[in-house]
Amino acid sequence: MAQGVMEQAPAQAAGTTTTKYVYFFGGGKADGNGKMKDVLGGKGAGLAEMTNAGLPVPPGFTIQTEACREYMRGKLSPQIETEMLDALEKLEKMQGQKLGAGENPLLVSVRSGAKFSMPGMMDTILNLGLNDQAVEALAKRSNNPRFAYDSYRRLIQMFGDVVLDIPKKKFEHIFDGVKHSAKVKYDYELTPDALKKIIAEYKKLVKKETGKDFPQDPLLQLAAARDAVFRSWENNRAKTYRRINHIDDWLGTAVNVQAMVFGNLGENSGTGVGFTRNPATGEHTFFGEYLMNAQGEDVVSGVRTPNPISDLQKTMPKVFEQLKDITRKMEKHYRDMQDFEFTIQDGKLYMLQTRNGKRTGLAAVRVAIDMVREGLITQEEAIYRVEPNQLYDFLVPRLVEKGEKIDVLATGLPASPGAAVGQIVFTAEDAVKHHQNGSFKSVILVRGETTPEDIAGMEVADGILTSRGGMTSHAAVVTRGMGKCCVAGAGDCVVDEAKKELRVKGQTFRQGDYISLDGTTGRVIAGKLKTLDAQPDDPDLVKFMSWVDPVRRLQVWANADIPRDAKKARAFGAQGIGLCRTEHMFFAEDRIEHMRTMILANNEKDRRVALKKLLPMQRSDFAGLFKAMESLPVVIRLLDPPLHEFLPKREDLLVEIQHLQDTKPRSPKLKGLRTLLARVEELHEMNPMLGLRGCRLGITFPEITEMQARAIIEAAVAAKSKGGDPHPEIMIPLIGSIEEMRNQAAIVRRVADEVFAEKKAKVDFKVGTMIEIPRAALTADQIAEEAEFFSFGTNDLTQTTFGISRDDINNFLPAYLKLGIFKQDPFATLDQVGVGQLVKMAVAKGRNTRPNLKVGICGEHGGDPESVKFCHRIGLNYVSCSPFRLLTARLAAAQGALDEKNGTTQGGSK
Amino acid sequence: MAQGVMEQAPAQAAGTTTTKYVYFFGGGKADGNGKMKDVLGGKGAGLAEMTNAGLPVPPGFTIQTEACREYMRGKLSPQIETEMLDALEKLEKMQGQKLGAGENPLLVSVRSGAKFSMPGMMDTILNLGLNDQAVEALAKRSNNPRFAYDSYRRLIQMFGDVVLDIPKKKFEHIFDGVKHSAKVKYDYELTPDALKKIIAEYKKLVKKETGKDFPQDPLLQLAAARDAVFRSWENNRAKTYRRINHIDDWLGTAVNVQAMVFGNLGENSGTGVGFTRNPATGEHTFFGEYLMNAQGEDVVSGVRTPNPISDLQKTMPKVFEQLKDITRKMEKHYRDMQDFEFTIQDGKLYMLQTRNGKRTGLAAVRVAIDMVREGLITQEEAIYRVEPNQLYDFLVPRLVEKGEKIDVLATGLPASPGAAVGQIVFTAEDAVKHHQNGSFKSVILVRGETTPEDIAGMEVADGILTSRGGMTSHAAVVTRGMGKCCVAGAGDCVVDEAKKELRVKGQTFRQGDYISLDGTTGRVIAGKLKTLDAQPDDPDLVKFMSWVDPVRRLQVWANADIPRDAKKARAFGAQGIGLCRTEHMFFAEDRIEHMRTMILANNEKDRRVALKKLLPMQRSDFAGLFKAMESLPVVIRLLDPPLHEFLPKREDLLVEIQHLQDTKPRSPKLKGLRTLLARVEELHEMNPMLGLRGCRLGITFPEITEMQARAIIEAAVAAKSKGGDPHPEIMIPLIGSIEEMRNQAAIVRRVADEVFAEKKAKVDFKVGTMIEIPRAALTADQIAEEAEFFSFGTNDLTQTTFGISRDDINNFLPAYLKLGIFKQDPFATLDQVGVGQLVKMAVAKGRNTRPNLKVGICGEHGGDPESVKFCHRIGLNYVSCSPFRLLTARLAAAQGALDEKNGTTQGGSK
Repeated sequence: MAQGVMEQAPAQAAGTTTTKYVYFFGGGKADGNGKMKDVLGGKGAGLAEMTNAGLPVPPGFTIQTEACREYMRGKLSPQIETEMLDALEKLEKMQGQKLGAGENPLLVSVRSGAKFSMPGMMDTILNLGLNDQAVEALAKRSNNPRFAYDSYRRLIQMFGDVVLDIPKKKFEHIFDGVKHSAKVKYDYELTPDALKKIIAEYKKLVKKETGKDFPQDPLLQLAAARDAVFRSWENNRAKTYRRINHIDDWLGTAVNVQAMVFGNLGENSGTGVGFTRNPATGEHTFFGEYLMNAQGEDVVSGVRTPNPISDLQKTMPKVFEQLKDITRKMEKHYRDMQDFEFTIQDGKLYMLQTRNGKRTGLAAVRVAIDMVREGLITQEEAIYRVEPNQLYDFLVPRLVEKGEKIDVLATGLPASPGAAVGQIVFTAEDAVKHHQNGSFKSVILVRGETTPEDIAGMEVADGILTSRGGMTSHAAVVTRGMGKCCVAGAGDCVVDEAKKELRVKGQTFRQGDYISLDGTTGRVIAGKLKTLDAQPDDPDLVKFMSWVDPVRRLQVWANADIPRDAKKARAFGAQGIGLCRTEHMFFAEDRIEHMRTMILANNEKDRRVALKKLLPMQRSDFAGLFKAMESLPVVIRLLDPPLHEFLPKREDLLVEIQHLQDTKPRSPKLKGLRTLLARVEELHEMNPMLGLRGCRLGITFPEITEMQARAIIEAAVAAKSKGGDPHPEIMIPLIGSIEEMRNQAAIVRRVADEVFAEKKAKVDFKVGTMIEIPRAALTADQIAEEAEFFSFGTNDLTQTTFGISRDDINNFLPAYLKLGIFKQDPFATLDQVGVGQLVKMAVAKGRNTRPNLKVGICGEHGGDPESVKFCHRIGLNYVSCSPFRLLTARLAAAQGALDEKNGTTQGGSK
Repeated sequence: MAQGVMEQAPAQAAGTTTTKYVYFFGGGKADGNGKMKDVLGGKGAGLAEMTNAGLPVPPGFTIQTEACREYMRGKLSPQIETEMLDALEKLEKMQGQKLGAGENPLLVSVRSGAKFSMPGMMDTILNLGLNDQAVEALAKRSNNPRFAYDSYRRLIQMFGDVVLDIPKKKFEHIFDGVKHSAKVKYDYELTPDALKKIIAEYKKLVKKETGKDFPQDPLLQLAAARDAVFRSWENNRAKTYRRINHIDDWLGTAVNVQAMVFGNLGENSGTGVGFTRNPATGEHTFFGEYLMNAQGEDVVSGVRTPNPISDLQKTMPKVFEQLKDITRKMEKHYRDMQDFEFTIQDGKLYMLQTRNGKRTGLAAVRVAIDMVREGLITQEEAIYRVEPNQLYDFLVPRLVEKGEKIDVLATGLPASPGAAVGQIVFTAEDAVKHHQNGSFKSVILVRGETTPEDIAGMEVADGILTSRGGMTSHAAVVTRGMGKCCVAGAGDCVVDEAKKELRVKGQTFRQGDYISLDGTTGRVIAGKLKTLDAQPDDPDLVKFMSWVDPVRRLQVWANADIPRDAKKARAFGAQGIGLCRTEHMFFAEDRIEHMRTMILANNEKDRRVALKKLLPMQRSDFAGLFKAMESLPVVIRLLDPPLHEFLPKREDLLVEIQHLQDTKPRSPKLKGLRTLLARVEELHEMNPMLGLRGCRLGITFPEITEMQARAIIEAAVAAKSKGGDPHPEIMIPLIGSIEEMRNQAAIVRRVADEVFAEKKAKVDFKVGTMIEIPRAALTADQIAEEAEFFSFGTNDLTQTTFGISRDDINNFLPAYLKLGIFKQDPFATLDQVGVGQLVKMAVAKGRNTRPNLKVGICGEHGGDPESVKFCHRIGLNYVSCSPFRLLTARLAAAQGALDEKNGTTQGGSK
């Protein structure tokens, strides 16, 4: 039969370049095959593949994606119409039916199917071919008038909605009205007459809304439905989905026209969906659900509650065994867990669709390991079977939602995955208080937005909720670093910090009230849900990672400021610390006062006095890190943030002074506040991101660099004297020129020599820099003369390369994503075209000067899979990321290495 | 004799690479010549040249710069000592004297002399060779004991200060004590005995301070003085001077040892300095001053008031004629105006030094023109004889200081050159009020710092004084654009805006008090000085520019927002407008309210209503520009600044609300303020420079772009219908990606088509972009697909490439300049290494995509000579700068073209 089609397309057969638009499948043979996803879309290729594999697939044809692209360009080739009619004729012959005509009318489904799966995003029309005559024939043939009229009313409703743009609600209004007057509870209780009445009113609605009758000609229906599917490629839902999933807009969708089989022909018919394994846990058990006497949409729409597939074994044991047998073959054929749809028509099984099944991280690992054990796939393939981001699932708790009635208050940004359930507080102080005195067992900190001063509260909180800020806001970045659940920018939440109230969805929550946060989806839920703990020691995970690690070349280091994080990092496989932010230590309660004294000092002498008090504290910080990391390298970044971050906020001071002036003008406090304000004003900056920070601090106040260098070297010398083998790498931040680097490196090296002389002992150490502003990348050849290592600070490098402040991007990021100007947030995934160009340039220039230059990355991107693969490709030595991103980075690095080996640049199994 | 020296240096003569350290000059012949500035320094080369030219130069020798470099490296070759002693012997023979010995002791001067002139920056020692014996011999030989003892006491004082580091004040204290007890008014009235007493006390002081006696051995004196001169290369003064004048630190200085001639041998002796032309006006008159019975330092130190050189004609007509004759020869020989020093000893004239004279801009032009007329130089050379920045002198008034007693209150930054004298006000409103009602004839606006809201006040003020902010602060940038005098960042001034008081140097100035500002030097002067007007139509200038313009290839455009500026720009030679900032128009009083309404609108509809009111105003702005510029191109930049700049400041609102809450809690105003605050908070940004601005505004609110595009195109169509030939070029700011450019260009082109259809008329227009963030440069190949022109916004490009905010740089710029990390403010002179690399890259990538891409620059750098030459070299089409920088840019562009022609990259005459 398929050969017949080939004969009908001589131009194609003769090998000319004429496009073949329509691909037939059925009768055990298909024009296309499973590899032709570009042309046939995922579904169409799948149908061809299934057909060729001998699965019981209803026959039909696929109109290829080029037709959709032509449609978008506004010039559909007339050849499409010809080929489609030819294919239809063939289908009619094969089925022995005529589309919407005769005593046994052929009905077809018309479905979208793009190269990459976009579930539910585009439109589908079922029962196409029915009209006033065919419905009667169907009623007669099926001996089931209810089913026939119901199918027809469904067609008119779907066609009306999808093709004719008539609001769904208008149909539902009619349907509910008839149901109401018929006094029935369930749809299937409607009599054929009631359904006829609905059909009549539906047709009136179509006439009223469009000025034309519902088309009775099945061929007109078909052409219109096809075009509607093409159009649905460009609906907003679909566009959004593509943007989120990085699918190109120009790909277009194919259209699959397939003979209908019916799961609603009575109690001997049914329809269902299933997975060859459990998509939540990965367990190798047949998993799925079905409904008898129903069409597919009834299962997925959630209107009726389906039965677990195991029930089928009891009710239709033969069909169940056949299904199991077929799906087992499918899994073997596709070499991956399958997600399939089937229909039973009058006791006969049809497979409607199969595809690789989506799964949780836990399941992905389990399935990958099992399949290697089963001999289905190789270890190397197994490494591709897990999306690096999915490994996060092992590291965070999850909400248990089964059987709970959930009151979702708001949905914010999924800023840091995991779950948290606890009692809310509105200030960092309250968080610390209630945590310490044990009055709240679990604390959730609720803020408008967080600032560095909230750190203590964030550390004790189990979760953070903010009403402002994006995926890269302070709250988001810090919590991700801590592996702590965070929902950020939940705009519907009104956080009244003064009244200590959270107002949302008409409800008011006060301190001590319970809420539950789902950081993986961004949901804020009322009350106290149960949680399932993290499983970092899962034996499957351990086994999987033992396959992953030998494959990668890129080292994976962690960002960790304190020994606790360093230990966690090592547990998750860190091969070094790539970023210890020394300023985080200064925000600690026992230090910020010394820090402030230092900042408020009027002269170098007073500054040195304050720094002297900070020295032993810093030294002990570093001692702890060196101990935790043993002989692994520890990159310590010198003080980076602008000094005003350590002082009270300018506007708070202004308001407080005004208030005192108004109310207690003789208050002795006023003078002190005014002095403080004067210094705050001096340090105030229009653009703190671009101000007196980074190495500019150490150049302006060399005594700060001296103190920090001394603390590091003294700690290292002490560690070595106790038998340790510390490897400090001192990193100068925000370098933009060789002159800056030379200045700061000289101070560090001088201080080191001083300490060595005093202690009569030496340690190995390196001095290097962050490359985080464009000029550093542009002059990396010069900077490498002084810098012994580079670490790309891609957060700041992205800020300066784009000229976009991470703190302020949310004012326009939504518009940018919506318009497709950004395909993704450049602070989440490295912009390889722009920022990446600078990174590559800096690596090349740096290594040209210093061939053995060690180069890493320590920005947020170090934990993003695409960015990690990029780092592998351009030959970095390591990526450094939050401890909680280490698993992800390790896997991405391995996939990157395999991509290179296999000559691909994308994950092999996308 | 000189041949003798050659014979004494056989290694050199044999052509080996042995360094020759000491170069003799005298007796009409010198080892070196005038071209050897690298080796001999400017002064040494000059002495050789003068000697070779037969001028009456006292003989001596030059120790070359390599010796200084060796000294800095801490390894002075012993050969230097040998060569020096050989040269000394030769000098002694030639003079028939012995250094500091015998009846006729030889005395020498020891002076620095670097490759580039650094007047007064390094140390000099005179009368070297004198000791307890030689002074008696000199007294006897000269028959002038007073002179001999005075010379000796001068030597001890200078030697003590320069070589032995004894504070000058201690010598002065002794000197003044003796003078006081001798009861004399003038130094020369001191008796030999009094001088002897001073010498004795000086020697005691030396012993006390150093533990050693003043060295009696002349050779020891000589070696120590030489080393002190080497050291003085690295004193702070010298370093600062080099930094400002971009002189390399490693060059080192030569040391010139020369037989002393005395201008203080009595009333028949004297010394003086002069210029071959008037350095202030350029007039071809012999110009200078002298003192009889004095040494050179008496003339330059200002202790005694010298006589004009014309007096010499009366008192010593023969010497005067000889001097005129010699200097005329000198000018012919050097082909430039000379600045010379001479001494008359017992009626005999000696020339001590000559060099190209520094001069004002007025003088530079006049001298250049005269010298071409006199046949001394070519027109091309004349173009090099004027520093481009000097042309500014023609465009601004100057203070007349002659004969005035000046009370300099403070010295701030010379932010915008020129002079202003007027009555002070402390707010923009007061400035406008007193200007409009004529109560103050001339207004000087005094502010802590200025903001865009002060624009109206700045426009009517004659000068601006701020206590905060740098060379690129708002006040500085805006005033330079206006060609208005500004002193910025005068830190000693306390500006109390609340009390309307300026407190400085213990004085308090109130509104209406007179001050005078010198924007060229940064001085703030009490009271009302006279001024000399600008002379833009000076016939010399016009003639000079007629030579300049045909030479340059680079076009010179102007930044101008309003027709008045556009007219000025054309008068100064602008060939187009390269930047019209449309936002400046929105700050106008009649518009800011509509702007605020637009910003405060909650939805697109309300925004459009407000924009509709702004449309006709914008249209008429552009109509005015098109009229003024006739058929020249006008680049109009769409709205750029963050919207909150148009709203009241957040902290002001917070304080006002607090105050009302405290004092009038029921005030109806509170609610409005709170609503306003809410919007201000929404728009508040951590880093406004990197926030919602530029094209991000037009993308988020496309109706703004639509309104502006419509205003431009409608104005152009109207202009054309009136017979004009407008060429609008619409510039999208802050583009970072092709997607942004495509979005905005599409809106502009669509609106243009709409207008063309409505008006049934078309005009030529272009759509292009500013390249002002690194990513734009990095992806310029893509952006050029949509952009028809590029204009480098090097202010923002510098900010983002360096990661430095122009508003905040002053917190660390002083330290950076002091430490030599920056050689210059990167916002004043383009950083060719970093930012320039991006500019070059963008030009190459852009032209690769679009070979005829028009490329210009519109940042502040467009008016900086070095940067203009860079723009010429990399092949830009034009630079655009403030109208007041046009002359400078035209000249710099011409010099750049000549550099290229002559294969030099620096100005030929530096």
